[in-house]
Amino acid sequence: MTYDPDNTALLVIDPYNDFLSEGGKIWDRLKAVAEANRCITNMLAVLEASRGAGLRVFYALHHRYRPGDFEAWKHMAPIQGAAWRAKTFEEGSWGGAIREGFEPGPGDVVAHEHWCSSGFANTDLDQQLKVHGIQRVIVIGVRANTCVEATVRFAAELGYDVTVVRDATASLSEEEMHATLEVNLPNYAAIVTTSEIVESLAGSLRRPNPARPRALSGS
Amino acid sequence: MTYDPDNTALLVIDPYNDFLSEGGKIWDRLKAVAEANRCITNMLAVLEASRGAGLRVFYALHHRYRPGDFEAWKHMAPIQGAAWRAKTFEEGSWGGAIREGFEPGPGDVVAHEHWCSSGFANTDLDQQLKVHGIQRVIVIGVRANTCVEATVRFAAELGYDVTVVRDATASLSEEEMHATLEVNLPNYAAIVTTSEIVESLAGSLRRPNPARPRALSGS
Amino acid sequence: MTYDPDNTALLVIDPYNDFLSEGGKIWDRLKAVAEANRCITNMLAVLEASRGAGLRVFYALHHRYRPGDFEAWKHMAPIQGAAWRAKTFEEGSWGGAIREGFEPGPGDVVAHEHWCSSGFANTDLDQQLKVHGIQRVIVIGVRANTCVEATVRFAAELGYDVTVVRDATASLSEEEMHATLEVNLPNYAAIVTTSEIVESLAGSLRRPNPARPRALSGS
Amino acid sequence: MTYDPDNTALLVIDPYNDFLSEGGKIWDRLKAVAEANRCITNMLAVLEASRGAGLRVFYALHHRYRPGDFEAWKHMAPIQGAAWRAKTFEEGSWGGAIREGFEPGPGDVVAHEHWCSSGFANTDLDQQLKVHGIQRVIVIGVRANTCVEATVRFAAELGYDVTVVRDATASLSEEEMHATLEVNLPNYAAIVTTSEIVESLAGSLRRPNPARPRALSGS
Repeated sequence: MTYDPDNTALLVIDPYNDFLSEGGKIWDRLKAVAEANRCITNMLAVLEASRGAGLRVFYALHHRYRPGDFEAWKHMAPIQGAAWRAKTFEEGSWGGAIREGFEPGPGDVVAHEHWCSSGFANTDLDQQLKVHGIQRVIVIGVRANTCVEATVRFAAELGYDVTVVRDATASLSEEEMHATLEVNLPNYAAIVTTSEIVESLAGSLRRPNPARPRALSGS
Repeated sequence: MTYDPDNTALLVIDPYNDFLSEGGKIWDRLKAVAEANRCITNMLAVLEASRGAGLRVFYALHHRYRPGDFEAWKHMAPIQGAAWRAKTFEEGSWGGAIREGFEPGPGDVVAHEHWCSSGFANTDLDQQLKVHGIQRVIVIGVRANTCVEATVRFAAELGYDVTVVRDATASLSEEEMHATLEVNLPNYAAIVTTSEIVESLAGSLRRPNPARPRALSGS
Repeated sequence: MTYDPDNTALLVIDPYNDFLSEGGKIWDRLKAVAEANRCITNMLAVLEASRGAGLRVFYALHHRYRPGDFEAWKHMAPIQGAAWRAKTFEEGSWGGAIREGFEPGPGDVVAHEHWCSSGFANTDLDQQLKVHGIQRVIVIGVRANTCVEATVRFAAELGYDVTVVRDATASLSEEEMHATLEVNLPNYAAIVTTSEIVESLAGSLRRPNPARPRALSGS
Repeated sequence: MTYDPDNTALLVIDPYNDFLSEGGKIWDRLKAVAEANRCITNMLAVLEASRGAGLRVFYALHHRYRPGDFEAWKHMAPIQGAAWRAKTFEEGSWGGAIREGFEPGPGDVVAHEHWCSSGFANTDLDQQLKVHGIQRVIVIGVRANTCVEATVRFAAELGYDVTVVRDATASLSEEEMHATLEVNLPNYAAIVTTSEIVESLAGSLRRPNPARPRALSGS
């Protein structure tokens, strides 16, 4: 597979300290899976390879907890009730900050925070992808069976071509990983490994005219 | 749990012959699971109980295959490629007709056909629920880990309160059922059994003023 | 301006007999404006030029009236109440058929019918444009200040580049035309004349490699 | 007309200093219309009456300019290009702050910033309305023919019942006001005056059980 930086983006989902850093609120429950598949190392490798190949990077970030968020809701999804109780990704806290190494850089696009699991639902992600000419997305991040799976499903429904990097994601159990990577997402995306995508992206760079600058005209 | 017919609807997903009837294109692969949990009997029981309790019934139906549908698409989800090859739910065919007993009746709402798995994506389902005042949906139908899970995930993202009936759905394997009903959907919905929901709906009917007519003013 | 058929589509809005043909339910109220700007002749010219330049044609069609549509709605927009009373675009009727000369042909895409005015709201138009790689739309059709303006506004909001052909639309009064073409839509679209767009499209055809076939791979 | 606070919200659009305060970037062009219809006084009256009647208040706020926002967009709507050049509602500036008297208070909901004109497009406004049980919106704010009209059109398309307060909005010219309030929005909303809505809201308060507290359960 090759990826054209003119229409392909990397989509990084929820690289928060609460998920990915020692001391984060969910890290203890996530680290067994994350360490088994070298998730963080792989996420960094895909991020670096994507930047190297000239892909624009988009961030889909979960709602950061703020006092008063949910008090007046008439109902909510169970996962939202859990996030409310745990105050995960609290606004202004270290846990709600991006893990070192994953910080958005100049030219990256950070979509509106999402309230549930899909980076597309109730955000500007779809519009931002469109105005940047993106038709294909490569997805990495956490958690596999909640935000990653939801975002991939939405992307496919909305008409994007989707690739998921199977060892650049993690979740709370191998059972969750299996549900997403083996059972569900093969219906909606190509599933590749980090080494495969890094190789593809390196190849994408070796185009006949690799020096062609990316069109960045604003109007 | 009780359900108020003024704001609750039953949502029936893809009750096509190709899925649910002997001779349907997918029935052979689905029937082991469907027969093990008495899926069709349970779906009929929930449908009858919902109608009895005065709930409006909405149908989310998968795109029916028509020649020329996909030929010009630049890309598609793997599950769409499979549907294309198999010509499932072919327009005008028996397989693309609703299974006997599940036909929409007067006052039911049939949403636009969906192209992928979610009954909400690229359809009028959200708008139809809103103009009918619906804020809660009870979901039955097939297949569990594709159209049912996708529709439930979208419903939760869009702000609906969702209940899934665990033995009024089926899929191609117990592994798929497990991924959806045990691993993923508890994050997004209440999961109940047919007997529980039928009892709840019967109780919903026994309100102080059970004869109160439903408001049906058109303007 | 030039248009690349790989990412540009023509979008035709509501070319129904009820709007555009002698004897149609709304024609009598529309024809003064439509004849003054030669709307139908111009729409045909743009359609022909678009096909000649290899642009794919998409149709955004208003909901066709069917008995029982609105009876249970708790509320509706005034324009929907009017459509209900007038039974415009009645399903199966001549008025609800496409005017001769505007019939969709092979390879054209007909989006789900829209319930109000925007061809994007509650339909698959956005997804269909995306899977066909479309990022720019040229818009013609009726009525200017309802379905055309709504569809253009939505297209711009969703991230499309939009061109409106000012004399290939019509409405019930010059006041409505003015509100849309002079006051509102210059905020959201390029506004051109039929002769300008026909010339641009002819130029788009005269590319260095005009014979290059359009990519139509399905997977 | 009466409004039930359980399902009705006030929606305030873009009450920024740049629009509504002496010294704001757009105030000089807006003030002739705003002063002629006493827009600010009326907006405050509707806001106060809404709070008094127990309606929840939602804010739809335009994107605040930040450096780098648009540089990489492949295209944009003309109105976005103008906002980019003028740096309206600049993040952190006085012009991008809410005008005194219109600041969101406890329990109010501030939706994601919108990139173009509709408060619904690419934001969480629809979802926030739904989880709070809102089915009807009363709309005030600026500018009439851009953000107000766009938001009203989207609300109607998405299935909300909409009321617009005709003298609690303003724009750059009487021609723009006319296009929106006389020509277009009567198709999509009830149009009322400030004195009418204030009276209705006062009446809404005088219900048989005016002391009934609003349900604010979070789960």
